[in-house]
Amino acid sequence: MAWENARHADAEDPLADRRRAFALPEGVVYLDGNSLGALQPAVADAVRRTIDQEWGQGLIRSWNDADWVGLPARIAGRLAPLLGAHADEIAVADSTSTNLFKALAAARRLRPHRGVLLTDDANFPTDRYVAEGLADLLDDLEVRVVPATQVIEHLDTHVAVLTLTHVDYRTGARHDAAGITRAAHDVGALVVWDLSHSAGAVPVDLGAWDADLAVGCTYKYLNGGPGSPAYLYAARRLHDRLRSPIAGWFSHERPFAFADEHRPAPGAARFLNGTPPVLSMIALDAALGIFADVDLAELTDKAQALVARFHAGATTRLARWVQVVGPGPGAPRGAQVSLRHPQAGAVMSALIDRGVIGDHRPPDLLRFGFSPLYVSHADVEQALDVLEDVLTTGAWDRPEHRAPRAVV
Amino acid sequence: MAWENARHADAEDPLADRRRAFALPEGVVYLDGNSLGALQPAVADAVRRTIDQEWGQGLIRSWNDADWVGLPARIAGRLAPLLGAHADEIAVADSTSTNLFKALAAARRLRPHRGVLLTDDANFPTDRYVAEGLADLLDDLEVRVVPATQVIEHLDTHVAVLTLTHVDYRTGARHDAAGITRAAHDVGALVVWDLSHSAGAVPVDLGAWDADLAVGCTYKYLNGGPGSPAYLYAARRLHDRLRSPIAGWFSHERPFAFADEHRPAPGAARFLNGTPPVLSMIALDAALGIFADVDLAELTDKAQALVARFHAGATTRLARWVQVVGPGPGAPRGAQVSLRHPQAGAVMSALIDRGVIGDHRPPDLLRFGFSPLYVSHADVEQALDVLEDVLTTGAWDRPEHRAPRAVV
Repeated sequence: MAWENARHADAEDPLADRRRAFALPEGVVYLDGNSLGALQPAVADAVRRTIDQEWGQGLIRSWNDADWVGLPARIAGRLAPLLGAHADEIAVADSTSTNLFKALAAARRLRPHRGVLLTDDANFPTDRYVAEGLADLLDDLEVRVVPATQVIEHLDTHVAVLTLTHVDYRTGARHDAAGITRAAHDVGALVVWDLSHSAGAVPVDLGAWDADLAVGCTYKYLNGGPGSPAYLYAARRLHDRLRSPIAGWFSHERPFAFADEHRPAPGAARFLNGTPPVLSMIALDAALGIFADVDLAELTDKAQALVARFHAGATTRLARWVQVVGPGPGAPRGAQVSLRHPQAGAVMSALIDRGVIGDHRPPDLLRFGFSPLYVSHADVEQALDVLEDVLTTGAWDRPEHRAPRAVV
Repeated sequence: MAWENARHADAEDPLADRRRAFALPEGVVYLDGNSLGALQPAVADAVRRTIDQEWGQGLIRSWNDADWVGLPARIAGRLAPLLGAHADEIAVADSTSTNLFKALAAARRLRPHRGVLLTDDANFPTDRYVAEGLADLLDDLEVRVVPATQVIEHLDTHVAVLTLTHVDYRTGARHDAAGITRAAHDVGALVVWDLSHSAGAVPVDLGAWDADLAVGCTYKYLNGGPGSPAYLYAARRLHDRLRSPIAGWFSHERPFAFADEHRPAPGAARFLNGTPPVLSMIALDAALGIFADVDLAELTDKAQALVARFHAGATTRLARWVQVVGPGPGAPRGAQVSLRHPQAGAVMSALIDRGVIGDHRPPDLLRFGFSPLYVSHADVEQALDVLEDVLTTGAWDRPEHRAPRAVV
């Protein structure tokens, strides 16, 4: 019955044919696109061409002839519609961590007399490390960590900057970005959003949110490849007043003038930094091509439909063994669902051995992401069947599943 | 005569066969390896395998199964002997700009009551931008820029950190790194060296220099590919006291524990940062393989022999048209020579059209780098012949050579 319904949903899915753009291994149900998006053969081709032709034959000339210098702007143009942004509001550079550092430092400079950097206890640990690192560097800034459900109550005129991850990486809970941004602005604070678990999976509209700054990674739902470069968003209304703390030469108005004095590039490009990792940039550029003719509402609706199917199946069929974590049906969430099990690492290991790839977040979460470009409704049913089998038979309770795995 | 001598030198060159590891285009004399090192087909193969097999088939599992998590340490192990360092003194991450920011900030924290960040007017512009950016972020630090020949005279007890580029990117002049480091230590200052134009081309021995911190890029003489990740060196004796200002999760002792509190990784790995760009890291890892059985003294001797040949030829044959810039014969320099010509951009354009690729540094320099793994003595003679031809015939004085090119 559920399978029949899934087959019907797949037949009706306007995005079903996009799966063919991806090179997924035979027999694998891949539910970890929220951690590392899948490969498109077109990406492999683009990187090959860049290495063999542009680097190998063109050599240094390819910075101009193959327009490597234009890569950050070109990728910004592809990302902009996914974020509800203008291309000149996006800098593609560095890792999410470095971008968060730059964004927090730049935002804080606009509120120099306020001493609090506010975040919540659901934020991704790196984001907290980066915030603490900035506070540690400056003398007059402290990080305040409050419960995720009480962020608005803790906003006051001491808060210089609020930084939150839009979608909780563990529970999938999704903040009301527009409402929180409004509340922060009401007390004169700026907000830096981390969209790593959002872009390409749930609706993001930085313009409509009246967002100040944001950062995000591109190797999850955007499929840019392992460790592909991240992005930083800065709203146009702030451009003239924002300065990046790390002024690598690509942030210069004219990098190749080798001028003694730094003059920031116009727009968000002032947050570019050192020489970009071209091979990883090329992969990202090619990976984003698929979004050009995707209807974003269809994309995020499909993700929610997959989530709803998994959530309902887990709740009805697996409740004896696992707790379904996070928001209930219909409540805002990311394109992921986590299940709590005391031996989550071993259970995930057993699932992976059976071709269902999710991940494990310590101490006790099984996490499944539903990347709407290549996950089907049938995949969800298959995952539920395998999960039920592994849990009912106790197949996870074997020595080979007890070795801890590092999972990024 | 000169050609005969060059052929003889090539026949005697113990590194001559290394050129076969590189995929240089037919008919090109490539003298811009100081800007972008050439491609090795082994690098193309490694990246292809990583994309098709590790990313495409292994997906998220490759962080463990293909040991992507181990890439920074693996590359550090390859770089260490090139730098006179221990592997645990090197973090491979980010761009040179970001690493310089991290190194300067970390060094300054060890001298919190000193207000001067000293550098010289020959430093690469980005390094100055980054230094200014840090000073701008902190309240009590100023950048002082002094003439390159007077650095030691300007060292005093107000100097927290001295930062210099070992080899001047324009003139090729090379600082006495050991002597300057000693002089800085004598006044209690720390030194951050930028080795971007040094490693793989001139002798570098951070241990013998008693160096504190250093950074460098890997896409020049190390051939890591366009924008390949950079490195940061931190001396063991400082490890316990150094803290990176940007505490991305790969700098954590246990990144995959997702702990609330940041605990720095042991050694220089505390300067790792966000998720590394794996494709660019893989290229770098493969590119460094060739150095494993290269005698470093042979490598740097060959570079100096090529430099001497070009310098002598330019001085004797081209003095009517160009000024040979920088240190004289026998004086310390990098593996590069620059020639001054009022229309340097047009001259370089004409050279490139004739298959001799160097670069142009504004306003008036022609720059030639001699990467010892793949440049031959015959290449140098060929370049001199073409240069002489272009200069005597005035072949550069054509409209098509007047369009400015951005050159990285």
